[in-house]
Amino acid sequence: MSKGRLEAFSDGVIAILITIMVLELKVPQRADWDALRPLLPVFLTYVLSFVFLGIYWNNHHHMFHATHQINGKILWANLHLLFWLSLIPFVTGWMGENHFAPLPTAVYGVVLLLAGLAYVLLQHTIIAAQGPNSRLATAVGRDVKGKLSALLYAVAIPSAFVHQWIADALYVVVALMWLVPDRRIESKLDH
Amino acid sequence: MSKGRLEAFSDGVIAILITIMVLELKVPQRADWDALRPLLPVFLTYVLSFVFLGIYWNNHHHMFHATHQINGKILWANLHLLFWLSLIPFVTGWMGENHFAPLPTAVYGVVLLLAGLAYVLLQHTIIAAQGPNSRLATAVGRDVKGKLSALLYAVAIPSAFVHQWIADALYVVVALMWLVPDRRIESKLDH
Amino acid sequence: MSKGRLEAFSDGVIAILITIMVLELKVPQRADWDALRPLLPVFLTYVLSFVFLGIYWNNHHHMFHATHQINGKILWANLHLLFWLSLIPFVTGWMGENHFAPLPTAVYGVVLLLAGLAYVLLQHTIIAAQGPNSRLATAVGRDVKGKLSALLYAVAIPSAFVHQWIADALYVVVALMWLVPDRRIESKLDH
Amino acid sequence: MSKGRLEAFSDGVIAILITIMVLELKVPQRADWDALRPLLPVFLTYVLSFVFLGIYWNNHHHMFHATHQINGKILWANLHLLFWLSLIPFVTGWMGENHFAPLPTAVYGVVLLLAGLAYVLLQHTIIAAQGPNSRLATAVGRDVKGKLSALLYAVAIPSAFVHQWIADALYVVVALMWLVPDRRIESKLDH
Repeated sequence: MSKGRLEAFSDGVIAILITIMVLELKVPQRADWDALRPLLPVFLTYVLSFVFLGIYWNNHHHMFHATHQINGKILWANLHLLFWLSLIPFVTGWMGENHFAPLPTAVYGVVLLLAGLAYVLLQHTIIAAQGPNSRLATAVGRDVKGKLSALLYAVAIPSAFVHQWIADALYVVVALMWLVPDRRIESKLDH
Repeated sequence: MSKGRLEAFSDGVIAILITIMVLELKVPQRADWDALRPLLPVFLTYVLSFVFLGIYWNNHHHMFHATHQINGKILWANLHLLFWLSLIPFVTGWMGENHFAPLPTAVYGVVLLLAGLAYVLLQHTIIAAQGPNSRLATAVGRDVKGKLSALLYAVAIPSAFVHQWIADALYVVVALMWLVPDRRIESKLDH
Repeated sequence: MSKGRLEAFSDGVIAILITIMVLELKVPQRADWDALRPLLPVFLTYVLSFVFLGIYWNNHHHMFHATHQINGKILWANLHLLFWLSLIPFVTGWMGENHFAPLPTAVYGVVLLLAGLAYVLLQHTIIAAQGPNSRLATAVGRDVKGKLSALLYAVAIPSAFVHQWIADALYVVVALMWLVPDRRIESKLDH
Repeated sequence: MSKGRLEAFSDGVIAILITIMVLELKVPQRADWDALRPLLPVFLTYVLSFVFLGIYWNNHHHMFHATHQINGKILWANLHLLFWLSLIPFVTGWMGENHFAPLPTAVYGVVLLLAGLAYVLLQHTIIAAQGPNSRLATAVGRDVKGKLSALLYAVAIPSAFVHQWIADALYVVVALMWLVPDRRIESKLDH
């Protein structure tokens, strides 16, 4: 079974998610600076979520570049990942409109954590189908970055109730950590 | 005529449907748990419809994997399927916002039934073009799962007016039945 | 220059247009039959516009199937067609919400007419690039259906102010006329 | 690493942006000419932004046609461009709904300027990967059009506060300048 349609469908879903988030930036009715000010937290969460979805798209791209065969389990593991990603616009809007209040900030972390776990599950499913000596298995290795991200989300979620900026700072740290494209796979495949 | 564009267009439509449903999860204005509670039925119907659209995408993927030639009739039978699928976000929103009230629950089943029949019609159109000994015809066989689904929808629709949970339970049964990817086609094609 | 991206971009735009129209079917707050009744004209216009966009997608598919080279002029003629198609959700919503009132019905026809002319212009641009003996030129021939459609739209627009049902009936006639896939091209290419 | 998915993802995002802008054309509740009149500025900004996004899609198409290898830096430079393009529907809606008031008109120019700079950055990233003698480097040359556009935006932004029509006229001039497809690349590649 070819991977073309799985990639095309995932591209479509991620492209739509990344763009419908911008609809949460509601057009103000007035035309002065004061009308823009309440949009600032919405804009900042939009930037953060845009970067997260960009990271997922980038890593998805790298992962399937190293995948040659897909099966029914991989199709569903991929849809499971897309499900959690599809909740990002909702939690982004909720966090932005409530100016990073504790509960929405924690729920944002929960969705990121579940999306992260879904990504790891998809990765395991592909490696299980391709064998432990496949290019992807070698490239992923011990997946330190993946495990560290999950740990940081798990710390961020409760800390949102102590002070929301701790959680927000941790989300930014995870994003920066991944913003560097997945050189592990890229370098192993290209050289 | 190649199937590439038909697949790409269908992928696009299903990807959009699966993501615009999430817009029905309206961002609450408050940031506490009470603000999330009324969203629970909307969220549950979203999960159910996400799974149904995922099933359609998966089966569509398998079916066209076993299809080599398309013609004008197949193009229209496919658009006819997409039409009924395009009503899923509307009935999902209606059922969710009205907390699984009888009429929306029944109408949800009507749309699922008509989408199911449109899928069967598309399958027949492809088999008619490819001949009764084609790979798809052999793989589909007597299509027990397809017929059983239609029967369960037909039972669920009137039973929504007796008690809506009967209908909802039947929808979940159909979804679980299909959640297993279509191994009939997959196994016959891959071996 | 390859036609792959032009087809993919057009597929994307048409897939989005066909699905955002369904957002005009606003989820009713009540769960009884009376809540559905005002949606009937919106639903009927949705069906009509779905069929028109399906026809455009189908014909676009056939036309580019017979096209091998694209150039900058074809890219812009295609974007010009997509522009008029992009107004279909707006005029569909306006006509539906106002229960086929004369002015929205006439404006609906104006957008269909301009989309039709944009399609003819795109066809001419492709034939101009490929030469009068190309497969597309032969298949299109004198383009009786295209000219007849334009004529029917031109009659429908003023007649909406006499009685809107005349215009609506003419739109249905044009849709039925095209619902048959473009056998001219299909038959000449496949045999 | 192949460029197929990068192109498909960019096509998806631009196709969605170009079509969600039309949602800002809110369906009027009345069915007479007076109901259409307040939509005129919204419609005019829609046309302008449609043309700008069409130009970006066209130039993106040409640029990647001349690109053979992509890497992680190019993926992120492309996402960076898509980020600024994703703000176009918001600024289009703001400018349209406020009838070209000075501040929204200036902010519209800021987003166009940043999108333009992101495009130049992407172009540099590709040329850096391909070498100064690559086809793209030769085709782009001194990039007079790109530099002139940035200059015109930089002039337009402050002049919106003198009189908004100066800025709007400059945006139209830039659009017209690019409406001619990028013959530099096309001619050098095709001959």
